[in-house]
Amino acid sequence: MRTLIKNVHILTMDDQMTEYKNGYVLIEENRIIDLGEWREGLVSSEKVIDGENGLLLPGFVNTHTHAGMIPFRSLGDDVPDRLRRFLFPLEAFMNKELVAASTAYAISEMLLSGVTGFCDMYYFEDQVAMVCDQFKIRALVGETIIDMPVSDSSQPSGGLEYCETFLPKWQDHPLITPALAPHAPNTNSYEGLKKTVELSQRFDVPITLHVAEMDYEMKELAERYQQTPFELLKELGFMERPLIMAHCIHMTKSDIALVAESASQVAIAHCIGANTKSAKGVAPVKEMLAAGLTVGLGTDGPSSGNTLDLFTQMKLFANFHKTFEKDRALFPAKKIVRLATRGGAEALNFKDTGQLTIGSKADLIVVETKSVNMFPIFDTYSALVYSANASNVAHVWVDGRQLVNDHQLVDQDLSQIRANLYEQMEVFVSEAKKRM
Amino acid sequence: MRTLIKNVHILTMDDQMTEYKNGYVLIEENRIIDLGEWREGLVSSEKVIDGENGLLLPGFVNTHTHAGMIPFRSLGDDVPDRLRRFLFPLEAFMNKELVAASTAYAISEMLLSGVTGFCDMYYFEDQVAMVCDQFKIRALVGETIIDMPVSDSSQPSGGLEYCETFLPKWQDHPLITPALAPHAPNTNSYEGLKKTVELSQRFDVPITLHVAEMDYEMKELAERYQQTPFELLKELGFMERPLIMAHCIHMTKSDIALVAESASQVAIAHCIGANTKSAKGVAPVKEMLAAGLTVGLGTDGPSSGNTLDLFTQMKLFANFHKTFEKDRALFPAKKIVRLATRGGAEALNFKDTGQLTIGSKADLIVVETKSVNMFPIFDTYSALVYSANASNVAHVWVDGRQLVNDHQLVDQDLSQIRANLYEQMEVFVSEAKKRM
Repeated sequence: MRTLIKNVHILTMDDQMTEYKNGYVLIEENRIIDLGEWREGLVSSEKVIDGENGLLLPGFVNTHTHAGMIPFRSLGDDVPDRLRRFLFPLEAFMNKELVAASTAYAISEMLLSGVTGFCDMYYFEDQVAMVCDQFKIRALVGETIIDMPVSDSSQPSGGLEYCETFLPKWQDHPLITPALAPHAPNTNSYEGLKKTVELSQRFDVPITLHVAEMDYEMKELAERYQQTPFELLKELGFMERPLIMAHCIHMTKSDIALVAESASQVAIAHCIGANTKSAKGVAPVKEMLAAGLTVGLGTDGPSSGNTLDLFTQMKLFANFHKTFEKDRALFPAKKIVRLATRGGAEALNFKDTGQLTIGSKADLIVVETKSVNMFPIFDTYSALVYSANASNVAHVWVDGRQLVNDHQLVDQDLSQIRANLYEQMEVFVSEAKKRM
Repeated sequence: MRTLIKNVHILTMDDQMTEYKNGYVLIEENRIIDLGEWREGLVSSEKVIDGENGLLLPGFVNTHTHAGMIPFRSLGDDVPDRLRRFLFPLEAFMNKELVAASTAYAISEMLLSGVTGFCDMYYFEDQVAMVCDQFKIRALVGETIIDMPVSDSSQPSGGLEYCETFLPKWQDHPLITPALAPHAPNTNSYEGLKKTVELSQRFDVPITLHVAEMDYEMKELAERYQQTPFELLKELGFMERPLIMAHCIHMTKSDIALVAESASQVAIAHCIGANTKSAKGVAPVKEMLAAGLTVGLGTDGPSSGNTLDLFTQMKLFANFHKTFEKDRALFPAKKIVRLATRGGAEALNFKDTGQLTIGSKADLIVVETKSVNMFPIFDTYSALVYSANASNVAHVWVDGRQLVNDHQLVDQDLSQIRANLYEQMEVFVSEAKKRM
């Protein structure tokens, strides 16, 4: 079946950043088969959607999150060393069912805010992949490997064994890319990291991990290896694999040059909201991009970033980078929207997505302009970065399938998803309250 | 008539930061006559509102904006020296009708986002006051004085003459406080600033102005007077008047100490969003508060901050101040919500508002918790600062009158308000497009 979307201002994010002010898009199966300026009688379709003067653009791509962590949201937000005081201890109470229920909730929240693809890193990633499959969202799904017993393995680095069955199971899925997700360079053994690279080669899957996020991480690695995390990862062969490195806050000029040698393989998931809420700092994105690195935006988990939408990240990105570089003209809104959409799609290597051209996959959204915050619009990109919020997303398609229609999930009942999560959280909540 | 609001988690913002988890509020005329933990049969009322487990708190107070500037939104956002390139030249095309239409739109937007009171600074403030009166919002309304011809006066500093009739007209209004608004210390003559203080004394009204916002302002004043703006204002007698100083980015330790001597009269409107979007810097709010100064949050105009809601400001406030002070525990969410509500009410001296106690005026809002971004809530303040956005505001009361019900304006037609603004903007838009 074909779907025609009319009466939209299209931001294609193609190489020329082409726009169609009174545009249309024609979708067949999972691809865009036509788009451009509308003329009456131009094309016909069984299904026609009136975009009502909304903005149509590629879906947002969230390059780093932990969808299983909805239960942690608003818990201990302003507490020092929250990771060791709240997150690690309470993860003992995570189980398969809770992770699945949380992931369903997180995907719902992402879809409703216009996120059409994301990169996940957590435990029980087989469950995560099953929920992604059920929701039909595009995802890179990374099983965590860490040098301690965790909720889905009683053995340190048990994630490696988990991956032996997890990776081949999902390898050929049209929407899901399974991946290895070592927690961080300092929380894995040298051997564990080495085996990660081997598995990544054997199954031909990507790796994603936290890098240079914590100041103590930098110190530990300097003491243990006399290396920066990037030097260590290079030595271990990570840079020859498809690699998504989250955070990269503490990245020196020589680290950037080192990583840039592998620019075709490696991408950075920049999480400005989580990094600044926790006072960790502002990653040197201006220099990363100047060196030719691929950068996408990420929310981090719902405990760290609290929201899973990229509107919040775009706004924080603009204000932080302009202020840190003392240059209000730096990163105009157009560049930021590009990072949040096409940048993310490139970072996660979601092929044929991230820009709207004939033949590309139909991962796209419509942001309405009827709400009070969306008028006037002299510059569509400014409106998206500085004015819009998640509630302005009206319609969402992933791989040609409409998943959000008029601000509501299609074929999914949000109140049921929430009730199920609430039920699964019972033990977690009582344990959490003991620690508050 | 009485109104009973039930089934709400109340954040009173009183001196003890008292909360009622299953709370109720009883409103009669314009005041709260009862509140506390709900028990069946406790009180009765003709009108009962079910808060559906929402959060009830004092309304947000926007301590600095330019409601007349909606036409400028999304115009030239990422352009250096936008003030002189876009704002000043295009202000020649502002007129009475356009300012009134813009103010109606801006007030609608603020009410829908839970702002119950604001401080305005623009031209044609008599029109602004009339629109505020029509909408029944609480406002401090300041007529701009600047040493050049402007849209409402062909004479430099014509605002002073304007105020001779404007101030007495509104002096005794229950919701509106008229005020003098010199543009900034460097854009007014010494004589003009002196006359401002005299008028403020004569009519017993407050003053609001931009201070220490621009780096060139600091330089100009140092050259002209060998003083910081704060030293100049002190010398001129501003510190003995009720005074709201917006921005105060470039404020030294000795400036803070100087201003703190007048802490009972003087307040600061901190506009973190506008200040950082334009790369101007982060005001030293930690030090201001430590010195005992009153601080409220402000959005600045819709051209500078783009949104008029305080959720955006609270989130930016948290992340910027934590990161700049390298302390994730600094300014916990509770303190930030207090600044955005009670802090603002104190800054604008809106008597008997800003906290919910028996006898206080009923300026209050309900933020719903049904939307996908509002679950789970371990900490209500965290949910407000880190998760919520303007679309979560369900109900709003100002001075006992319900102005927003279930996300819609009461007795106002937003589409008509927008259509009217659009009509009034015709000439402005064609002039704006010439400069893009």
